[in-house]
Amino acid sequence: MTVRFGLLGAGRIGKVHAKAVSGDANAKLVAVADAFPQAADAIASAYGCEVRTIEAIEAAKDIDAVVICTPTDTHADLIERFARAGKAIFCEKPIDLDVARVKACIKVVEETGAKLMVGFNRRFDPHFMAVRKVIDEGKIGDVEMVTITSRDPGAPPVDYIKRSGGIFRDMTIHDFDMARFLLGEEPVSVFATAAVLVDKAIGEAGDYDSVSVILQTKSGKQAVISNSRRATYGYDQRIEAHGSKGLVSAENQRPVSIEVANGDGYTRPPLHDFFMTRYTEAYANEIASFISAIEKGSKISPSGADGLAALALADAAVQSVKEGKLIRIG
Amino acid sequence: MTVRFGLLGAGRIGKVHAKAVSGDANAKLVAVADAFPQAADAIASAYGCEVRTIEAIEAAKDIDAVVICTPTDTHADLIERFARAGKAIFCEKPIDLDVARVKACIKVVEETGAKLMVGFNRRFDPHFMAVRKVIDEGKIGDVEMVTITSRDPGAPPVDYIKRSGGIFRDMTIHDFDMARFLLGEEPVSVFATAAVLVDKAIGEAGDYDSVSVILQTKSGKQAVISNSRRATYGYDQRIEAHGSKGLVSAENQRPVSIEVANGDGYTRPPLHDFFMTRYTEAYANEIASFISAIEKGSKISPSGADGLAALALADAAVQSVKEGKLIRIG
Amino acid sequence: MTVRFGLLGAGRIGKVHAKAVSGDANAKLVAVADAFPQAADAIASAYGCEVRTIEAIEAAKDIDAVVICTPTDTHADLIERFARAGKAIFCEKPIDLDVARVKACIKVVEETGAKLMVGFNRRFDPHFMAVRKVIDEGKIGDVEMVTITSRDPGAPPVDYIKRSGGIFRDMTIHDFDMARFLLGEEPVSVFATAAVLVDKAIGEAGDYDSVSVILQTKSGKQAVISNSRRATYGYDQRIEAHGSKGLVSAENQRPVSIEVANGDGYTRPPLHDFFMTRYTEAYANEIASFISAIEKGSKISPSGADGLAALALADAAVQSVKEGKLIRIG
Amino acid sequence: MTVRFGLLGAGRIGKVHAKAVSGDANAKLVAVADAFPQAADAIASAYGCEVRTIEAIEAAKDIDAVVICTPTDTHADLIERFARAGKAIFCEKPIDLDVARVKACIKVVEETGAKLMVGFNRRFDPHFMAVRKVIDEGKIGDVEMVTITSRDPGAPPVDYIKRSGGIFRDMTIHDFDMARFLLGEEPVSVFATAAVLVDKAIGEAGDYDSVSVILQTKSGKQAVISNSRRATYGYDQRIEAHGSKGLVSAENQRPVSIEVANGDGYTRPPLHDFFMTRYTEAYANEIASFISAIEKGSKISPSGADGLAALALADAAVQSVKEGKLIRIG
Repeated sequence: MTVRFGLLGAGRIGKVHAKAVSGDANAKLVAVADAFPQAADAIASAYGCEVRTIEAIEAAKDIDAVVICTPTDTHADLIERFARAGKAIFCEKPIDLDVARVKACIKVVEETGAKLMVGFNRRFDPHFMAVRKVIDEGKIGDVEMVTITSRDPGAPPVDYIKRSGGIFRDMTIHDFDMARFLLGEEPVSVFATAAVLVDKAIGEAGDYDSVSVILQTKSGKQAVISNSRRATYGYDQRIEAHGSKGLVSAENQRPVSIEVANGDGYTRPPLHDFFMTRYTEAYANEIASFISAIEKGSKISPSGADGLAALALADAAVQSVKEGKLIRIG
Repeated sequence: MTVRFGLLGAGRIGKVHAKAVSGDANAKLVAVADAFPQAADAIASAYGCEVRTIEAIEAAKDIDAVVICTPTDTHADLIERFARAGKAIFCEKPIDLDVARVKACIKVVEETGAKLMVGFNRRFDPHFMAVRKVIDEGKIGDVEMVTITSRDPGAPPVDYIKRSGGIFRDMTIHDFDMARFLLGEEPVSVFATAAVLVDKAIGEAGDYDSVSVILQTKSGKQAVISNSRRATYGYDQRIEAHGSKGLVSAENQRPVSIEVANGDGYTRPPLHDFFMTRYTEAYANEIASFISAIEKGSKISPSGADGLAALALADAAVQSVKEGKLIRIG
Repeated sequence: MTVRFGLLGAGRIGKVHAKAVSGDANAKLVAVADAFPQAADAIASAYGCEVRTIEAIEAAKDIDAVVICTPTDTHADLIERFARAGKAIFCEKPIDLDVARVKACIKVVEETGAKLMVGFNRRFDPHFMAVRKVIDEGKIGDVEMVTITSRDPGAPPVDYIKRSGGIFRDMTIHDFDMARFLLGEEPVSVFATAAVLVDKAIGEAGDYDSVSVILQTKSGKQAVISNSRRATYGYDQRIEAHGSKGLVSAENQRPVSIEVANGDGYTRPPLHDFFMTRYTEAYANEIASFISAIEKGSKISPSGADGLAALALADAAVQSVKEGKLIRIG
Repeated sequence: MTVRFGLLGAGRIGKVHAKAVSGDANAKLVAVADAFPQAADAIASAYGCEVRTIEAIEAAKDIDAVVICTPTDTHADLIERFARAGKAIFCEKPIDLDVARVKACIKVVEETGAKLMVGFNRRFDPHFMAVRKVIDEGKIGDVEMVTITSRDPGAPPVDYIKRSGGIFRDMTIHDFDMARFLLGEEPVSVFATAAVLVDKAIGEAGDYDSVSVILQTKSGKQAVISNSRRATYGYDQRIEAHGSKGLVSAENQRPVSIEVANGDGYTRPPLHDFFMTRYTEAYANEIASFISAIEKGSKISPSGADGLAALALADAAVQSVKEGKLIRIG
């Protein structure tokens, strides 16, 4: 079976998914839609697909699944429309920045029985997958403490910050999802600290650029998250899971692994400087997992519920910073 | 000038300091006192010094300085006695488990003008000293976020736990001192999470074995501490300081740095399995620093005030766990 | 411009090149030929190209270049035929196992003015390319000594060994090329030592499985090569170039970079276990370089002369082992 | 039992051994002799021993063992004198630069039944000892190929070079001993290549500064040695033993293990810059092993025969370079 795709949104991340779909032997990119005709044309010509309207894709009989890469504030509406249209849906995170809206959207997905996958791509990074596998095989015993380090090479433009929902909902949300993925038990409390240390303009926009978070589960397992919008040495992405029998960790990734030694010491190159080069394989694996789940009719993960859970943690973190206390979940 | 020493307490840590004093070209171990004559005899015979009573050391004219390695509940009293006796004092941490008692003790030290150094040995670890030096040289710019990982190979006996003051005052206190050492600005708030994941008996004794802490300074700098009483792979001691211009980190230490590769992968040996082998150089450097400060009449660090500050953070952490909220300091 | 390709040989390495050509935006796979129709059909159906005879590809007007992946003993003949047919030629190494035959073949290439690239794929490995770049930028000064470690996970079947030309012409030849690539000066002498330590059957077939080689250039620069047909821990491929100002090295590659720590130590996974997964990017970069050189009309490297030079070093190594002495080149 | 020592030679290496003897609980430094009274006085005052003449030490009844650290050309004579005087002898390498003289000296040692240890300190480096232990435990199966990298931070003065016996007898001799230590089978052939790449004055003095060597044993095991008198990044000392079941390697050592990351990459400090700081523990372990063997009456290793074997390999290497061919040993 070949899964036939429509792509909604032909921007930066749309191109990544267009390439992943086109390169997958079990999928075919049939059509692309975008408010900017030139963006849609570029993808259509690069991957040999048609340009259509969203309405046409919604009604199309030759399309089984859609990838939603449009602006965040359109996600929930599009998910509902395509769920009702009977398409399988891959949606970039987040579903929405408002928990109530997300819940309403998930209700529609459930009622229609639609398949929905939310784009937490890091679960599909080969190194992080290998960490998860070590845990699943029992090699470190019960997970007790997780440490997640996630630092961006630089801050995004303040305009982006303003409509992003803030660092917890935009950046830390990936780490909330990763913590849930690794802890194997739901966090029941969140404590967060936040500061503006990198760029005052971020503070003026009402957001933070340097945050630390502790999550705890019912049985006492803990996850610590350290985030910064600044890392001069590249895209710093590490995880560490400490268990009753041992420790498993995933190191940082760099484009080439060479080392130069001289009187100043031994120097390895900086890390990847961009999330798209760092997570190239993760994006491809993610779409492949979506396609495979559709083909086999198997459970899709991460689901809408996963998207909701991570957003709820982000909201709790915001509240924790505001109130200076531990926030209980659920 | 040779600094002439009396050693109070001939137990495990007393032996470490006896060796350090004896091996220092500018110091001489003159006498040792211990409630157990055999313990004192053993040190006297190994290092060629006399066995004396505490009273005799207090009154001795051939002794300039003392090293206090007796049980914790005697520290404050001994500091006061030897401060009044005009000796320079090196005291193992903590001064006392009670903040009020520590304050009273420091008052006596100040009134007598005595020299007092508190045994936060990690400040003298060559790797951590090198981290501090990188920061001092401005190589990573302003410190923004510090991450301290500190895991013991195994939990101490429950009897020890009961009189230790609990994990925050006994174990995390070293990390609180290290955070202060690296942040370069006093923490103004503490948040701590704690659980019993390793050994139920620790919980029954009213303590925890797995804790996570976030400290924050006035300007927003953050330190995250991760502690566990369990690390199957050895004594896990890492620090990382992230600044505006870069990152500096100190790796773990192992007895030998070899690697064996076969079909199972590439394996390096476990870490040091004991704090005394891990921090051998730190103990020697610490005493050397104390001796040097006495000789030169220079400022002694870490001081009694440093001991008090770390204890206050530990107390705040205990309160934070109990109340589930951020505790403001000072 | 799109470079239109014919593929000669649809075996294991043929598939690798078919994928690389198909995935390159500036190239198109037009036809494939193979003595086994099923092998050709498999590639034709996977990449949407035609199955043709070698003769048809030779005569085709819609084909600009060929990739030769047929058995070694057909390489020289095919190069000559396609040189005369005016096609650009990419040929897997070696051109032939006989130096005289290679010289004759290169003469035809020169007379016809054909473009010929020989498949020393390792020059296109991103890590080794980065090593070369560091040298080119003068960061390690003049190269003085090169160390190349190259160990296969396991020995090939003895049948393959018999027709391979022996370890020096089959395996070490890659390292001879790498040494030339890094030394920046031609070797003028070769000394080689060889033994059968892995598999007696290899010795019975007249070959060796464990060899050490020293190359030296006129100015005294040295390259040391260490080869084994056995490496239980994966495909061991390291290079190190020591210069007047410093050292540059390329580390081994593994599929995922995680580490598991427990009482046995810290373990990273084995290396890649197969040259095709280890050198995936190198194969793609190699074909891209060939296509780019055709498009731009620029110099092709590595050339037939490079293939000849590496083979001459292999022949000298064989002679050195036989005679127990240094063999002068050229 | 306490082993009572006389020290012959109070220079740089004499001081190292004086400290090691004084710090060993089972030994006592009784006397020191040196042609320069000030040098002897300095050691006598630092370690509380007497200054005596060589003759007085030879005749002394309160001395059990001597450490010979005098100039190389006095070693053989002193060994013979002290062997006849019934003392246990530790002699810095080499016994002599002439094989015949070494043989004559060893004959005297054997006739007198004296205990003689030759100072190949690297066998006592904790990391290299751990490599040997992995081999002894069978963890890598039969050793097949050994790679030894040994590069000095800088060339010694040409005056030293002239009386050193040349790079093979002065520097590579350590690696010849290490190869014998790791191969577990005697080399039967040597091939060496040499060049002057670092300092022309070394060439004018008749020596080389950059050499590569291949040793082979009867069963075909191979050792490759790479030496240079230049390493801008510190004292480069690595070994690697590849066996039928796996690989064991010892990494380089640096004073502190920190890492600084910024836009230029991840930088670790240079290595030790001096053999005495690199091999501090090796020197102490070496003397401890000598003392322990005397106390227990056990076999001393490395012996005079080990010194002879390494010198014979050095001589063969010199001959190999001169004649451009493999030299058979024994």
